[in-house]
Amino acid sequence: MARSRLTPEAIETALASLSGWKLREDGLAISKTFKFRNFVEAFGFMAQSALVAEKLDHHPEWFNVYSRVDVTLTTHDAQGVTELDVKLAQAMEQAGMHRI
Amino acid sequence: MARSRLTPEAIETALASLSGWKLREDGLAISKTFKFRNFVEAFGFMAQSALVAEKLDHHPEWFNVYSRVDVTLTTHDAQGVTELDVKLAQAMEQAGMHRI
Repeated sequence: MARSRLTPEAIETALASLSGWKLREDGLAISKTFKFRNFVEAFGFMAQSALVAEKLDHHPEWFNVYSRVDVTLTTHDAQGVTELDVKLAQAMEQAGMHRI
Repeated sequence: MARSRLTPEAIETALASLSGWKLREDGLAISKTFKFRNFVEAFGFMAQSALVAEKLDHHPEWFNVYSRVDVTLTTHDAQGVTELDVKLAQAMEQAGMHRI
């Protein structure tokens, strides 16, 4: 079930429980830009998120430049957003709690 | 001097001593795509590179999805490629030695 594509309503409900995540225009991914004070904090967030991602066996697409991390989450197998993306987003919220 | 923009000739010489790095079309950055066996290896490479980057006080722009890491190096202050980019590229070569 974790890899079943969520309905638009379920995605909307999930996003409402998160902060700053948006559904991509094509509806197939969610994304957020995290801002930190510096590279050490940004990479600390990435390291923490990486451990969770590996544990979930579900990994982000992300871009980092200095203190910024752009994250995109999607489930390729399901060609859309699943419960796994929501779980990873929740974990990344926790990991990113020290963002400015 | 480390933050002085290199001449096109100096960049070419530096790239010749590296493997797989290319000058971006606009001539202002160098880039390489690293491929690994899985996320653990890709993120291991990123962690190792991050420590070097922080030590050099010079950071990459990079995108990661699963086993792939796209790296772009440029020196914003100099609006181009400097010795710092070459140093970071050399260190990333070392860090990426286990790539497939």
